[in-house]
Amino acid sequence: VLFLGTGAREPSVERGVAAELVIRGGERILVDCGEGTQRQMLLSTVGIGGLSTILLTHLHADHVLGLPGLLATFSDTREKPLLIAGPAGARSLIDGFRTHFGDLHFDLDVREVVSGEVIGRDGYRLLALPARHDGAALGWELAEDQRPGHLDPIRAARHGVREGPALARLSEGQDVRVNGHLVASASVVGPPQPGRRVVFSGDTRPTDLLARAAGGADLLVHEATFLSRDRDKARATGHTTAAEAAQAAAAAGVRALALTHRSRRYSTEEVLAEARQYFPEAFAPEDFDVVEIPLPEHGCPRLVSGPRAPDRGSG
Amino acid sequence: VLFLGTGAREPSVERGVAAELVIRGGERILVDCGEGTQRQMLLSTVGIGGLSTILLTHLHADHVLGLPGLLATFSDTREKPLLIAGPAGARSLIDGFRTHFGDLHFDLDVREVVSGEVIGRDGYRLLALPARHDGAALGWELAEDQRPGHLDPIRAARHGVREGPALARLSEGQDVRVNGHLVASASVVGPPQPGRRVVFSGDTRPTDLLARAAGGADLLVHEATFLSRDRDKARATGHTTAAEAAQAAAAAGVRALALTHRSRRYSTEEVLAEARQYFPEAFAPEDFDVVEIPLPEHGCPRLVSGPRAPDRGSG
Repeated sequence: VLFLGTGAREPSVERGVAAELVIRGGERILVDCGEGTQRQMLLSTVGIGGLSTILLTHLHADHVLGLPGLLATFSDTREKPLLIAGPAGARSLIDGFRTHFGDLHFDLDVREVVSGEVIGRDGYRLLALPARHDGAALGWELAEDQRPGHLDPIRAARHGVREGPALARLSEGQDVRVNGHLVASASVVGPPQPGRRVVFSGDTRPTDLLARAAGGADLLVHEATFLSRDRDKARATGHTTAAEAAQAAAAAGVRALALTHRSRRYSTEEVLAEARQYFPEAFAPEDFDVVEIPLPEHGCPRLVSGPRAPDRGSG
Repeated sequence: VLFLGTGAREPSVERGVAAELVIRGGERILVDCGEGTQRQMLLSTVGIGGLSTILLTHLHADHVLGLPGLLATFSDTREKPLLIAGPAGARSLIDGFRTHFGDLHFDLDVREVVSGEVIGRDGYRLLALPARHDGAALGWELAEDQRPGHLDPIRAARHGVREGPALARLSEGQDVRVNGHLVASASVVGPPQPGRRVVFSGDTRPTDLLARAAGGADLLVHEATFLSRDRDKARATGHTTAAEAAQAAAAAGVRALALTHRSRRYSTEEVLAEARQYFPEAFAPEDFDVVEIPLPEHGCPRLVSGPRAPDRGSG
């Protein structure tokens, strides 16, 4: 997960506005698209290619104003279909932007969903989660399909299966007949392995339902607009404090927590210190940082600095 | 004139999209407002304060998509009135953005103008100029008021005027009576001094009328989307080559030319080399560069690097 904009409300010198890019193999899924996201993608060196899907958590300006410019760029050259999924109002939002981008030469599928809806994709699924914010708001879960269990070659050999095609069929879940007796796939292949799961809270007050839905996820990306000393502001504006986000992560038993949508009134250190009181595996990524999520058996998610193209005049 | 975005069509790693900021004392006038302009203003260290006026040359995406985010930011705290002036369609453009910014607590005056219209301001005036581009398009001239001529103290003394109040009245253009005889202001005060003039072409094919209107300006900021080798593209898309912009500057007899809205297919050096064949005082500013325009009697406009706040992860 590449963090393209970790700021709340409006851009600052330090931070762009909301956008996270999920990079899975050659495919990219963008969660929210604040003003300047297109250029942040270019500056991240990831570029704007490979984008298959844009998920919107809600339709506030700081989460959507990068869309018309991105679609204007796509109107020149893009041919692959693009899915944009968001809460009620997403369609009229995109229609309102149409005057700013020309004719599209690709299939743009804009879907309005409610929490609980599932969108199946090749190798993973998208699940809309409930959020509590001003108006229609969603969280999003990206869950990879289960992977087949591991075939145990020693057990297979004990059943007399040694050659390639039969082993391949067994590992794909098919039973095979060897020397007249049946070898059940389940007898040589372990249980299916879970895929990776990432949950995005969107802008929200903490909710039990979201925390429950996030249960056991590899990474929870949660907004943390405020610190506890401003908890009244968080409550009044439909946002979450770093402590509340960390408590949600602890309740959900996720493997790691990344705090984003941070107000520029706080330092990264302050936000982290508050969160880690409740959940030690909390990260507070800066723009262009990446949280890498290995397969569960290969270790814990970790925060790394992403590559960054130098833009003119920055040196 | 601070160049916030010198790129054409879409943002790139190197360049933001169209926006120039005229800084005159404590006042700032923005010419065009592409996506990301707000953040470019923050990164330039000039900030978004002091902005009194936004002039739009036309309503294409790369010139206007920074407006909703900027107005959303202003909706929080701004109290001073803001003028937005642009070609036909500017009002419905802003109305279309209203869903993205909340209630404004300041007076937003959106004016649609045609070329030839003048908007008087305190100490200067704005003149809409004709441009030839797709749809309604304008150039803009910013012309400072004339400054009063210099009072010659020696000639005043010859007329017997030495003391302060009478000198002040003479320099303000009033005649005074000294020792019974009339001293005419014109006899001791030189002719009015011209103010500074900057002309922005907007996106346009070269036009005689624009060049004539720009006659003698201190600075002509002209688009140079293409080089001569792509002059067919320039003609087909309603744009100008670096050579054509330089020829216009030479014909207009301006003091300096700044080339902007440059395609990323060319290097700055190529653009400059082509332009300087026709007009030696050509600049090709990068984002965050400034062309300073001294009062005419204090020398020629010059290109300097503006200050630049380091944004996160750039170093």
